[in-house]
Amino acid sequence: MSNDPIRIVVTGGTFDKHYDEIRGELTFKESHLPEILKLTRVTVPVEIEQDQLIDSLQMQDANRRSILEACSRAKESRIIVTHGTDTMAETARVLGPVGLEKTIVLTGAMIPYKIMGSDALFNFGTAFTAVQLLPKGVWIVMNGRVFQWDKVRKNKALGVFEEIA
Amino acid sequence: MSNDPIRIVVTGGTFDKHYDEIRGELTFKESHLPEILKLTRVTVPVEIEQDQLIDSLQMQDANRRSILEACSRAKESRIIVTHGTDTMAETARVLGPVGLEKTIVLTGAMIPYKIMGSDALFNFGTAFTAVQLLPKGVWIVMNGRVFQWDKVRKNKALGVFEEIA
Amino acid sequence: MSNDPIRIVVTGGTFDKHYDEIRGELTFKESHLPEILKLTRVTVPVEIEQDQLIDSLQMQDANRRSILEACSRAKESRIIVTHGTDTMAETARVLGPVGLEKTIVLTGAMIPYKIMGSDALFNFGTAFTAVQLLPKGVWIVMNGRVFQWDKVRKNKALGVFEEIA
Amino acid sequence: MSNDPIRIVVTGGTFDKHYDEIRGELTFKESHLPEILKLTRVTVPVEIEQDQLIDSLQMQDANRRSILEACSRAKESRIIVTHGTDTMAETARVLGPVGLEKTIVLTGAMIPYKIMGSDALFNFGTAFTAVQLLPKGVWIVMNGRVFQWDKVRKNKALGVFEEIA
Repeated sequence: MSNDPIRIVVTGGTFDKHYDEIRGELTFKESHLPEILKLTRVTVPVEIEQDQLIDSLQMQDANRRSILEACSRAKESRIIVTHGTDTMAETARVLGPVGLEKTIVLTGAMIPYKIMGSDALFNFGTAFTAVQLLPKGVWIVMNGRVFQWDKVRKNKALGVFEEIA
Repeated sequence: MSNDPIRIVVTGGTFDKHYDEIRGELTFKESHLPEILKLTRVTVPVEIEQDQLIDSLQMQDANRRSILEACSRAKESRIIVTHGTDTMAETARVLGPVGLEKTIVLTGAMIPYKIMGSDALFNFGTAFTAVQLLPKGVWIVMNGRVFQWDKVRKNKALGVFEEIA
Repeated sequence: MSNDPIRIVVTGGTFDKHYDEIRGELTFKESHLPEILKLTRVTVPVEIEQDQLIDSLQMQDANRRSILEACSRAKESRIIVTHGTDTMAETARVLGPVGLEKTIVLTGAMIPYKIMGSDALFNFGTAFTAVQLLPKGVWIVMNGRVFQWDKVRKNKALGVFEEIA
Repeated sequence: MSNDPIRIVVTGGTFDKHYDEIRGELTFKESHLPEILKLTRVTVPVEIEQDQLIDSLQMQDANRRSILEACSRAKESRIIVTHGTDTMAETARVLGPVGLEKTIVLTGAMIPYKIMGSDALFNFGTAFTAVQLLPKGVWIVMNGRVFQWDKVRKNKALGVFEEIA
């Protein structure tokens, strides 16, 4: 199988939230991706790029442009974007129509990596092989499913992603 | 994307090892797959089948035949086999030549699910999308990579899977 | 040594915070104390009483009265109160002057039990033997130290409890 | 309350077992005590001394003498010994009759610190305040209880410590 290098564009989201014990709240400090990569023991070459660390509900146009630029200038043709779930589909709709000659997979987590019972490691795993196996295009991989960028929304009441016609 | 049901054939291995505090050793009790499935929040239909709970170093021909039979009689065409890493490639070599009309992915873990820093959730994630995206055949998915059943071995000194010519 | 039963009066606080993945925030659901008690394998008889589940910054006089009443009517003479750290010293100053003929130990956590790297289990352990070994009175046990109820404050900048003259 | 420094004499045991993913077994690498001390956020001065890293079933007379010497030469008068549970009572019976003018508390764990559901942090917490509050002598603190060195045994069938007459 292909052993192409993978770029991981980190944008924050629940995936990377950190508990600040002085302020008593979930916030961002630094990405957990370097720590996660070590434990996964992956042998595929990986480049981590911290684009931003932000709750996706706070994202403005400029934030999404920054993600698009990161994907655009990447020399790798396989890119994982870690992203908050609340506006992941929105960002996918910014990246999708551009038609970059790359496979871009957005994923995230419903529960932060550092909290017991988190889905972060599993989701990152699903994205990690999906980005190697999917054709060029923009995809969301959540809940163990692969969605096309223009056929997906987050069902906020249930906390799962679902296909739309 | 396809939303075909996935069968998970559990055979044990490090993935599912459990610490027995009375005997003071790692052994098997029951599979963690049902617990894991809950936290992954997958929306793809999944069927778990506990075929055996065994260290793969203990596996005899009968154990591998049992796995083959489980794959063979499965009504699902997408199957994940959780398996000890030490003889995973051997089992793949039993399943591969049979040429079942199914996509079968073997995966496992270097560190038990219940131990901090485990690769189990990540590996299970990598297998979970790989089994949906790969063509029919038998595959090993470990270290974030996809291997054909006849082109892979475990490098026991390094603890990683590698491609062979 | 004495094997007197211990009452645990649960009031919430960071110790017991739970991540609500639908709302994306830390809140309360149910106390983790029953789960914690199982893993501690304690052989001292313990009674858990959920008095309230609240962030201690939200506590009003009525909340502290409720804690006092719980301690007062308890048939056990050894009581642990799990409590948010922000106003733990305030509650201690409500309980202390009453002079109940009981040993009452308040403890809590800087990081929720469910978050990796939490101090909750350690702190609960420190309170568990302290309540058995201290004389009657009201005490705060945090940061591995025992404080008299009227000689302690939380240093909010450092996130530690310290003695005051 | 006293703020005397505490010495922690590390001897290994289940508490400190580490999973070696190459050999696929629980063994020792380095003590987790430095990492644990950080997360406990203790403000009492603590000195960690790694005396040995051994399964207590393997302990010979020389190992117990080494523990006794560590306790004997310690300048601190409050000492915690982390120890395997299987022969903890035996070591206590070596230390007890010597009658050092110190408070010595032995503790350990039934489940390694690194395994989910471990009792290690709780037990260490119980020992941490017990060593500050108990009079001079040798004690075992396990299962949330304080035992005199000559009145305790491990019930290996149940996996708990119990008092003997």
